[in-house]
Amino acid sequence: MDWNKEEKEKMLASAFPFWEKLTMEQQNRMLQGVIGNHYAKGTMLHYGGKECAGVQIIYSGQARVFVTSAGGGEITLFRLLDGDVSILSAACMMRGMDIELDMELETDSEICTIPKCIYQTISEENAEVKDYTLEMISEKFSDIMWLFNQYVFSNVASRLAGSILEHRALAGADLFSITHDVLARDIGTAREVVTRLLKQFQKDGLIKITRGKIEVLDSGKLSKI
Amino acid sequence: MDWNKEEKEKMLASAFPFWEKLTMEQQNRMLQGVIGNHYAKGTMLHYGGKECAGVQIIYSGQARVFVTSAGGGEITLFRLLDGDVSILSAACMMRGMDIELDMELETDSEICTIPKCIYQTISEENAEVKDYTLEMISEKFSDIMWLFNQYVFSNVASRLAGSILEHRALAGADLFSITHDVLARDIGTAREVVTRLLKQFQKDGLIKITRGKIEVLDSGKLSKI
Repeated sequence: MDWNKEEKEKMLASAFPFWEKLTMEQQNRMLQGVIGNHYAKGTMLHYGGKECAGVQIIYSGQARVFVTSAGGGEITLFRLLDGDVSILSAACMMRGMDIELDMELETDSEICTIPKCIYQTISEENAEVKDYTLEMISEKFSDIMWLFNQYVFSNVASRLAGSILEHRALAGADLFSITHDVLARDIGTAREVVTRLLKQFQKDGLIKITRGKIEVLDSGKLSKI
Repeated sequence: MDWNKEEKEKMLASAFPFWEKLTMEQQNRMLQGVIGNHYAKGTMLHYGGKECAGVQIIYSGQARVFVTSAGGGEITLFRLLDGDVSILSAACMMRGMDIELDMELETDSEICTIPKCIYQTISEENAEVKDYTLEMISEKFSDIMWLFNQYVFSNVASRLAGSILEHRALAGADLFSITHDVLARDIGTAREVVTRLLKQFQKDGLIKITRGKIEVLDSGKLSKI
């Protein structure tokens, strides 16, 4: 990535609420350490075990963070968009954290990484950084508890409806491109199940399916499934 | 609870790895603030939303921490035994943490609570305490991710087998008392499903079911389900 110090500083200041609380020297260490990378759409990154990138900022693009089972099944945990911070990509630097996760770039993306040694050292020096880390982890913990509840207590149809509404929000339009495969992986079910349910949703007048696209006709009813 | 300062100090020192790193004054604040309570078997405690006990130590007893769905379904997240620290009962003091959970005392229990204001103040003063909190949250996060995987990617039979082996470990014996209801709640399924599977396990020679008890006959095979 080709960017100057001002652009880097602007990005870090907007991503990290603790930025202004850092000393000039700490800011400079982060500015000098941050690494920008371009990833093509479809790139897969794996974090966990011994592999740890550091704290990442999605400068631009869209990433899907998911877990994979031994059998190859996938469940989407959350998506990261422009400006979002990926704290779990630094999970290996946290004692007690033992998770493995994958990230798929869903669009061409620019990702900035604060290497773990730099982030960790500054976090030891500055309580604001530690508080931020704990807050980010707590947020993700809450998100995943919510998702857990969705999985265990709600049925496949309502998860699918929720996923359709999420993609509608991401697209910012009622009509958007999506494959049955993407929906199936989002909610951790088979493609056939998604296809069958989508037909049912269409029959009920909630959506309209066209080649490679879905149009949401009744988001109100969809959200109540 | 009727205990003296020495007993309290021994308990706090053994529960918290940061104890020796606190100043005398901080230790005294914790010692003066800690509250001991006796709870009868079957007591239900709720944490989350605005309700927050503080950091708790199971002085003696056994607690089951679980989530409850709107429909009343339950899933056991983990159990806490003698000496375990319940960090999630202080979830409301963590920014970004938004979870609701329930705790059932499975035996008569003595629980010590460090009120959130005391824990939080000392945590602001001492980075070791903050590190400990982050580590405990990270551990619980990892546990719940593991459980999530179990739920979503593994079938009910293997979850039941896992739960039976857990209760065997808790009992410290192959033969132990357990109801089908407890097993059903542990793994978030209906009692009828548990009963049917237990019969299957018995037929396969893995367990022996007697009135209110289960005897594990082949833990090796059970762990491979």
